[in-house]
Amino acid sequence: MPRVDGLDKATGRAVYSPDMELPHMLHGKILTSTYPHARILNIDVSKAERLTGVKAVITARDTPDVAWGFMIKDQPLLARDKVRYIGEPLAVVAASGKDVAEEALDLIEVEYEELKATFDPEEAMKPDAPLIHEGLEAYTTFWPSIRYGNVCSHVKISRGDVEKGFKEAFRIFEDRFTTQMQHQCYLETHASLATVDLGGKVTVWTSSQAPFSIRSELAETLRIPLNKIRVIATQTGGGFGGKTDISVEPYCVLLAQKTNRPVKITLSRKEEFTISGPRHASIIELKTGVKRDGTIISRQAKLIYDTGGYAGPGPGVASLGSTYAVGPYRIPNIKVDAYCVYTNKTNCGWMRCPGVVQTNFASESQMDIIAKDLGKDPLDLRLRNAVEDGDLSPTGQVLHNVGLKASLQKAAQQSGWGKKTKEKNRGKGISCVQYESLGMASSALVKVNEDGTINLVIGAVDIGQGSSTILAQMVAEELGVPFEEISVSTVDTEITPFDTGTIGDRVTYNMGNAVRMAAADCRQQLLYLASSMLEANPADLKISDKLIHAKGVPEKGVPISEVSMAGHYFKGGPITGRGVFFAEPPAYDQKGVEGHAFPSAPIHTFAAQVAEVEVNPKNGKVRILRIISAHDLGFAINPMLAEGQIEGAVAMGIGYAMTERLVEDKGNIVNPNFSDYKIPNILDVPKIEVFLVGEKAKDGPFGAKGLGNPGVALPAPAIANAIEDAVGIRIKDLPITPEKVFFAKISPDERGR
Amino acid sequence: MPRVDGLDKATGRAVYSPDMELPHMLHGKILTSTYPHARILNIDVSKAERLTGVKAVITARDTPDVAWGFMIKDQPLLARDKVRYIGEPLAVVAASGKDVAEEALDLIEVEYEELKATFDPEEAMKPDAPLIHEGLEAYTTFWPSIRYGNVCSHVKISRGDVEKGFKEAFRIFEDRFTTQMQHQCYLETHASLATVDLGGKVTVWTSSQAPFSIRSELAETLRIPLNKIRVIATQTGGGFGGKTDISVEPYCVLLAQKTNRPVKITLSRKEEFTISGPRHASIIELKTGVKRDGTIISRQAKLIYDTGGYAGPGPGVASLGSTYAVGPYRIPNIKVDAYCVYTNKTNCGWMRCPGVVQTNFASESQMDIIAKDLGKDPLDLRLRNAVEDGDLSPTGQVLHNVGLKASLQKAAQQSGWGKKTKEKNRGKGISCVQYESLGMASSALVKVNEDGTINLVIGAVDIGQGSSTILAQMVAEELGVPFEEISVSTVDTEITPFDTGTIGDRVTYNMGNAVRMAAADCRQQLLYLASSMLEANPADLKISDKLIHAKGVPEKGVPISEVSMAGHYFKGGPITGRGVFFAEPPAYDQKGVEGHAFPSAPIHTFAAQVAEVEVNPKNGKVRILRIISAHDLGFAINPMLAEGQIEGAVAMGIGYAMTERLVEDKGNIVNPNFSDYKIPNILDVPKIEVFLVGEKAKDGPFGAKGLGNPGVALPAPAIANAIEDAVGIRIKDLPITPEKVFFAKISPDERGR
Repeated sequence: MPRVDGLDKATGRAVYSPDMELPHMLHGKILTSTYPHARILNIDVSKAERLTGVKAVITARDTPDVAWGFMIKDQPLLARDKVRYIGEPLAVVAASGKDVAEEALDLIEVEYEELKATFDPEEAMKPDAPLIHEGLEAYTTFWPSIRYGNVCSHVKISRGDVEKGFKEAFRIFEDRFTTQMQHQCYLETHASLATVDLGGKVTVWTSSQAPFSIRSELAETLRIPLNKIRVIATQTGGGFGGKTDISVEPYCVLLAQKTNRPVKITLSRKEEFTISGPRHASIIELKTGVKRDGTIISRQAKLIYDTGGYAGPGPGVASLGSTYAVGPYRIPNIKVDAYCVYTNKTNCGWMRCPGVVQTNFASESQMDIIAKDLGKDPLDLRLRNAVEDGDLSPTGQVLHNVGLKASLQKAAQQSGWGKKTKEKNRGKGISCVQYESLGMASSALVKVNEDGTINLVIGAVDIGQGSSTILAQMVAEELGVPFEEISVSTVDTEITPFDTGTIGDRVTYNMGNAVRMAAADCRQQLLYLASSMLEANPADLKISDKLIHAKGVPEKGVPISEVSMAGHYFKGGPITGRGVFFAEPPAYDQKGVEGHAFPSAPIHTFAAQVAEVEVNPKNGKVRILRIISAHDLGFAINPMLAEGQIEGAVAMGIGYAMTERLVEDKGNIVNPNFSDYKIPNILDVPKIEVFLVGEKAKDGPFGAKGLGNPGVALPAPAIANAIEDAVGIRIKDLPITPEKVFFAKISPDERGR
Repeated sequence: MPRVDGLDKATGRAVYSPDMELPHMLHGKILTSTYPHARILNIDVSKAERLTGVKAVITARDTPDVAWGFMIKDQPLLARDKVRYIGEPLAVVAASGKDVAEEALDLIEVEYEELKATFDPEEAMKPDAPLIHEGLEAYTTFWPSIRYGNVCSHVKISRGDVEKGFKEAFRIFEDRFTTQMQHQCYLETHASLATVDLGGKVTVWTSSQAPFSIRSELAETLRIPLNKIRVIATQTGGGFGGKTDISVEPYCVLLAQKTNRPVKITLSRKEEFTISGPRHASIIELKTGVKRDGTIISRQAKLIYDTGGYAGPGPGVASLGSTYAVGPYRIPNIKVDAYCVYTNKTNCGWMRCPGVVQTNFASESQMDIIAKDLGKDPLDLRLRNAVEDGDLSPTGQVLHNVGLKASLQKAAQQSGWGKKTKEKNRGKGISCVQYESLGMASSALVKVNEDGTINLVIGAVDIGQGSSTILAQMVAEELGVPFEEISVSTVDTEITPFDTGTIGDRVTYNMGNAVRMAAADCRQQLLYLASSMLEANPADLKISDKLIHAKGVPEKGVPISEVSMAGHYFKGGPITGRGVFFAEPPAYDQKGVEGHAFPSAPIHTFAAQVAEVEVNPKNGKVRILRIISAHDLGFAINPMLAEGQIEGAVAMGIGYAMTERLVEDKGNIVNPNFSDYKIPNILDVPKIEVFLVGEKAKDGPFGAKGLGNPGVALPAPAIANAIEDAVGIRIKDLPITPEKVFFAKISPDERGR
């Protein structure tokens, strides 16, 4: 099925958040800190307020004294006493035009007392480091966490006894990997439009992956009850994790409250790169003990995630990273310590496959280091250790529907694995990954219209991945109605039923189950209504091709439209099916896990990838020749969309592997634009060969699991491994730039020239 | 409780349909017929199309060949072969501005062949009258109807034997009454904005009483499936029946489809008065046989409703009128023939208390004629014949919760009935009425938010009567949550559950029941979730003051917010309560009723009114001194809003009685503006004294019944009766202008001067 939103998006008619306009709308701009760490002595807005066209200037003193955060409540909407990174919002202005608002920013005078800053997370962890958050222990948290000094979260996982394992090992490998900040680079920057009525009710249009989260975060930060906040989702021009939490929304509301006019803020690309939260840079140290036959018996990981000035989702990122740091392998002894550390740098956020992209680069690179050392084939080493049904995840959850081996075998087979290429400077690398679908709450409503067509009403936004298309397909299948006759609602938190959000690969699985339940509820009601018309028992009826009929007697059926029309106008009432699905987290080893936000998951996904590269020894340039990606997603409701999503993930993973890096210098982002921050373009990405493997997953709707995240975690290690295969050098620091390859002594001869 | 929308409406911040704007929006205008009856030979739009700024011109040949109508399918969106009234839409234009669109209308050349027209419904009923609709019998109908010639609907009710009754009567009274066209005069004229996406999906913003009807009528006329149409209700600046069906909406959609741009049409006041459907003018002949003691034993009514060029809701109006034409009295012999007749005049529509305002003027005037003749007190005569619980309605439905006598007694008592005023030219009149709540389908969703606040989601528009306030009160009561913590959604047919519409006094009763069910569903879910937290049986729990606790132990309760938060994030899922209420029509006498759209109703309302007037014999002017209005609405959920609604109805009824008349001359409306069409102003309306009587109605939510309609049917007969009491003259033709009073020989002496 083609995407329901394809035509409007392809022709530019879709309305994204920056397109929103309301009569009498004002434009907002944000003044941000120019110091990485400083005490705020005074903010003088008087000159700005006097500028013609300026309607409001707001600083922290005009806002509720609330510190918020997805997990740790450490962040004010506007810096109150201190600034903790360059780019931290200090004041917001609403004016009749953007230019006036910008001019007003220049007129705001901020008096700072500079404080000693820290930019290196390992330095920040030392006892004598400048403390970025005083009184950290006092912050309330929604999730469990262990905190001290500049460590805002320390997640621990342990199983067995790693020291004992290392003693029994044939060989021990210790490696240190480092990764960079990557930005989500959604084409649509953050934009939001807010209006407030005189009863205090707030309406916000915004581009978001989780409108209900935006609602609850607005409620929390602005102290407004949830029933007085209405969040309406516009089309989303990409999210990739970066549109999960509030961004400009509360500023729009504050300004709208003060001016009694609609206020819109659209971030510029530069603001996006400095204000909003990229992927965490990380330091990953792995110590792995293996037996002579390649069996891994002990693996220890130390992870440091640099979260920047505030916790943000860092503790959650560290949690996910900690689970998958030891790889999807059956290892009896595990110890993981994941630290999320404050520094005076830009605040990091959620980004596709959060935490795991980092650890998987380390873990899957080290697998090849081990294989090479032991003289094993990297595929065989992985297959030997790979988890299977019934094995435990690192947190002690029993795994089911494990398609890891199938993914590895498919990717290897399709790539011609084992047949060594004869061409010089060419090589192949393999990687695999395990990821999870976040569960939590989804609810859905299916309305059967008078004419038998259907409106599916959900609180989950299609952020481009195609969920609206897939969910409509599920309703079509469940109700025996053509796909074209089903429309999927936009999200309006005031009206649509609750959903946790389009995050963590949960929509197809979690919302899919809710939608299926709602459709099944409709079917029951339709059969019941039809039973009196057909003088039959509802249990003896079925629906096919829009007809309700006794099983085996389709020719004596009544159309759904007739039954529904009768319900609306004559007897019984309109048919509205309801589905509520809450995937309860399965049991895990509570003793072995501490400070972990997501210790178990309703379902896991698996994927493997082979990259083939060619390295130019003269300049260190790496050309990616092929990417073969095999994914266990249970059952693909829409194979074309699944493939498209994997292609996008791989492209993003290639950027992460090769070119993308948010460059920071003493807290300054020095490349906040698409000239200096290089995302891969069509020439950088080869044709991506996608294969869907695995069997229908239990509890998944029609056997489907999630999909969006794993693909992005595979290219970096696969490419690093392929480079090693091609030219024998090992890059442990991302991105793999030509300089790094060139200077890694790939060819001392060439280097000398 | 004050109205939830009060502040924004009072300060002008509420957004009504003419306020809507979208980027790149075009403006539409409608070309209308200048002939009352003519064949269309040709429409040449070529000059209009060439005008700079004109983006589309559409005539019937560009539209689906569909005839539509609420009950009888006789009307094209744009006149196809014939025009049948002056003001009938012929073509629509979309242009960059309103002025350009208007200029384009002048450039459209229409060639007509004029046909003989008929303007008098009694003439139109004659066999030799020009036939306005050829092939009438071929029109499909959704409702039952009997049709012939220019009679588009003939509704029949009979019980007993009227002729036998007349033979047994002590006296027989025969009177003929006539009433005028009255316009709804909502301050907000019809306006609509439509946009179409490339998948063909239509979004329409409009001011409507019944967005789901707009949706289905758009689907029918434009041949679009319902899932491809989204109707979003704006604030409604008055409806009074006139915003029940499509008006400008399909033209906006047609133009948006053709131009690929948003198109808005806002009717001018002149267009409102000529294009849109006012209250039907009528001719009512009553023949009543009474016994010597005042008992009515036989009553026959002939009703003629002049529906104009098309049926529209005329057959429904005639149906309602037919039920109540004989008054709310216990009469053994009844015969009613209601005719809805085509003429070449503007098309009439629904208006508050449709059909019954007309018949009640007649019936209640004749009651006083009878009383005077028999020397009875008008109150006593009514009380002697008034229906009570267990009596039958004219269609044979058993009545319950009949508060007629209570209303009559309350109004009489409060007015000092029986104490004849000593002042000259002053008099009192009484009237009463029975009306019904339309049943049909309502559905509602109650969402309990994470913080325990509540969103009520419904498809019923608050058209100014305050239903959103009342329904929120019901949720508050049912769930033990403060009123302020409940928000009521706007209506968006794509998302909100189905409702038949804000028509026929059905929202409080019908939607109220659905809302109550949805809230009760939430309560059950909350108690169930809390039961494990409190380790108690759900049946032993209750909610009070936002706490769920074991009965009798409020101090050991858990807050709703805590239970709901747990449901959203930890176990069970979000709480979404669903209510579907379909009031099935009760049994009625099927043999005695023919061609009737609404033969029975789930519940009836009753009201009585006393008017006190002073007549100036010098100029015929009537000053209304007092109005005392007593209403049986079961139980008033919000007495302030109930009183406000009755005051509005009485003011509208005073306009109907005294000043309002859409003056038609050979099919031309000659007073299409507020200078020449006189609605009552603050000086014309006395203080209205409202009293609420009656007992809680069975099946009504908290005992409530509907309310909006009856009040408008009382002033005309009460005032006419008061004038008779004051100066002894009887006016049988509305409105009661000073001229009519003056020339009715009120005082030959005075007249001579």
